[in-house]
Amino acid sequence: MATSPSRRLDQLIQALQRLPGVGVRSASRMAYHLLQHDRNGAEQLAQALLAACEGIRHCALCHTFSDEEVCPTCADPSRDAGLLCVVESPADQAALERTGAYRGRYFVLMGRLRPLDGIGPDDIGVRPLLERLQTPPPVREVILATSFTAEGEATAHVVARLAQTLGLKVTRLARGVPVGSELEYVDPGTIAHALADRR
Amino acid sequence: MATSPSRRLDQLIQALQRLPGVGVRSASRMAYHLLQHDRNGAEQLAQALLAACEGIRHCALCHTFSDEEVCPTCADPSRDAGLLCVVESPADQAALERTGAYRGRYFVLMGRLRPLDGIGPDDIGVRPLLERLQTPPPVREVILATSFTAEGEATAHVVARLAQTLGLKVTRLARGVPVGSELEYVDPGTIAHALADRR
Repeated sequence: MATSPSRRLDQLIQALQRLPGVGVRSASRMAYHLLQHDRNGAEQLAQALLAACEGIRHCALCHTFSDEEVCPTCADPSRDAGLLCVVESPADQAALERTGAYRGRYFVLMGRLRPLDGIGPDDIGVRPLLERLQTPPPVREVILATSFTAEGEATAHVVARLAQTLGLKVTRLARGVPVGSELEYVDPGTIAHALADRR
Repeated sequence: MATSPSRRLDQLIQALQRLPGVGVRSASRMAYHLLQHDRNGAEQLAQALLAACEGIRHCALCHTFSDEEVCPTCADPSRDAGLLCVVESPADQAALERTGAYRGRYFVLMGRLRPLDGIGPDDIGVRPLLERLQTPPPVREVILATSFTAEGEATAHVVARLAQTLGLKVTRLARGVPVGSELEYVDPGTIAHALADRR
């Protein structure tokens, strides 16, 4: 009979498996590490989790995670409220912000369509997006910045239809050859798009 | 300027990186997942972390993680206190317990010698092991069950010397061909050991 040395340890290993991509072996390794070498880190993590659960909600305008009713980006009066860039996640939004090339607003879907996993338009932020498009400040152009994958394209398609029924202008990030790449190593689909959209 | 949407989110992503093997990308993915789909799990994890930090200590006898002063295995009067099996981790102890073939006691080093990383005898449980060997109940045989790797062998060597200076009998788990394996695929070192130790 394998008596576990500690019920609390078992519970910690079980709870760590709620993290995506963490199975029983990594969970054990994490638990041993925290208990043996970093109890401080464990307590910090616990406090951060509680603070996040208690304090993080969705921005009333762009639907991203936010500590306030309206997130700092939406509350920034210097940003163009007529441009609305639709992204899948806060990480994608951060990638766009890093360019420094965009000064409009965002809408964060917090997901993408995954029909094979049963994730439809109602499971991501399509309904809040519709509300957002119908309330002031008015939007004149919706920029689709979802991923260039099958799922991202499907998501873009649904959002585009929605925006078009409201009579809004809809654009998509340009497809093309990435900066710094040698043509030899770029896939044919990308080159075909770059040819068609040459300027 | 990339304004993060939430300071609490940043702190959570930072705290998750205290987990071994978790970088900024997995930490973000974990944080998004918990906040978006499993706030219950996040709270459970926080409680489990706090309970573990507060309640888990080292067993006074075998040094493994324990909720009590003495862990259930050491407290079990039916186990032979004269046999002391030295392992590296609670996971290794659990592997031995699963066999059902051992009814002695354990000592868990909570690590192994890693000279290249600066982990010496004082960083693992060699000192508590010495105390354990010098306090009753008396031990008549020390069974070395550290890993069969360079680091595990070095650890076994140090523990063996320690036990021998106290005049104790020291044995090592047998090296040999794993049950269920075909000779063709077994490495030469293992076959050489199996030949030398044939019975």
